[in-house]
Amino acid sequence: LFSIAGASPGWSDQGSLLVRNISDVSQSNFERGGLAHITVAGAVLHGMKEVEVWLQTFAPGSRTPIHRHSCEEVFVVLKGKGTLLLASSSSKFPGKPQEFPIYANSTFSVPVNDPHQVWNTDDVEDLQMLVVISRPPVKIFIYEDWDMPHTAAKLKFPYYWDEEAYYSPKDEL
Amino acid sequence: LFSIAGASPGWSDQGSLLVRNISDVSQSNFERGGLAHITVAGAVLHGMKEVEVWLQTFAPGSRTPIHRHSCEEVFVVLKGKGTLLLASSSSKFPGKPQEFPIYANSTFSVPVNDPHQVWNTDDVEDLQMLVVISRPPVKIFIYEDWDMPHTAAKLKFPYYWDEEAYYSPKDEL
Ligand SMILES: [Zn+2]
Ligand SMILES: [Zn+2]
Repeated sequence: LFSIAGASPGWSDQGSLLVRNISDVSQSNFERGGLAHITVAGAVLHGMKEVEVWLQTFAPGSRTPIHRHSCEEVFVVLKGKGTLLLASSSSKFPGKPQEFPIYANSTFSVPVNDPHQVWNTDDVEDLQMLVVISRPPVKIFIYEDWDMPHTAAKLKFPYYWDEEAYYSPKDEL
Repeated sequence: LFSIAGASPGWSDQGSLLVRNISDVSQSNFERGGLAHITVAGAVLHGMKEVEVWLQTFAPGSRTPIHRHSCEEVFVVLKGKGTLLLASSSSKFPGKPQEFPIYANSTFSVPVNDPHQVWNTDDVEDLQMLVVISRPPVKIFIYEDWDMPHTAAKLKFPYYWDEEAYYSPKDEL
């Protein structure tokens, strides 16, 4: 449904258009192998203040970092399947995460501040998701593994796509 | 992609599940002919506090009311085509709206407080959209026509789907 084959590298000038064609929006993997990210509606790119929407495609075997954030996050799986790994913020470190299968037409939201990771566990098919977050731009704390204390998780801000967008030319909003 | 043919009438018990199958979620037209609405992630149903996600399908010729709200709203068109009508909040009444074509794989966000309406203008195909709002549950002011003063627009709260959800049994969150 969301064909992204036609997308071109680098950021294009999308800030000033009211109706934008997602298929025309450029994408990038932002140094993360296997990830194609499109900011559908964003704070830095489009002036959103309360919500942000991404379209993300994970190649077979690829995944998000283990991370947490204090915003709400809702996923809608458009294509493919995978696993949500979810741990708790109530101990000193995440510990062994729970595993939840995710699949096309499924939706889930990640509890605020809970460490989590989304994997494409399929051998063949891409995992494509619409992702909604509150309070953009996102402030992400990254864990090296599930036993790292919450206090040691490292803030990456601005996150990869926001960092790139800050340094790209765009229209006045 | 989002097959909703299997959906059953009435609300089902979805509050306690972390990963939910959207195809299993019941839908309703909430007294609006031609609309099929699913609350994918909601304040009343699922305990969301900052964002809410809907899946809405408009039959050919059907449309939203002319309305405004002070939250942000992002649309992602999954299927079909139609027209966004958009007026301004800066005069005493909306006046003649601007018209924007919308189509599959397009996205747009509605400026806060601007009166707007989304139409399925196609003769044959459904218009299906994912809709994201901030600050749920939504507080919608409805206009009878584009010449009604902003001050005369009528608040409908809770809105149809939230009203129904309030009165339905659901799990503790
Ligand atoms: Zn996350
Ligand atoms: Zn609206």
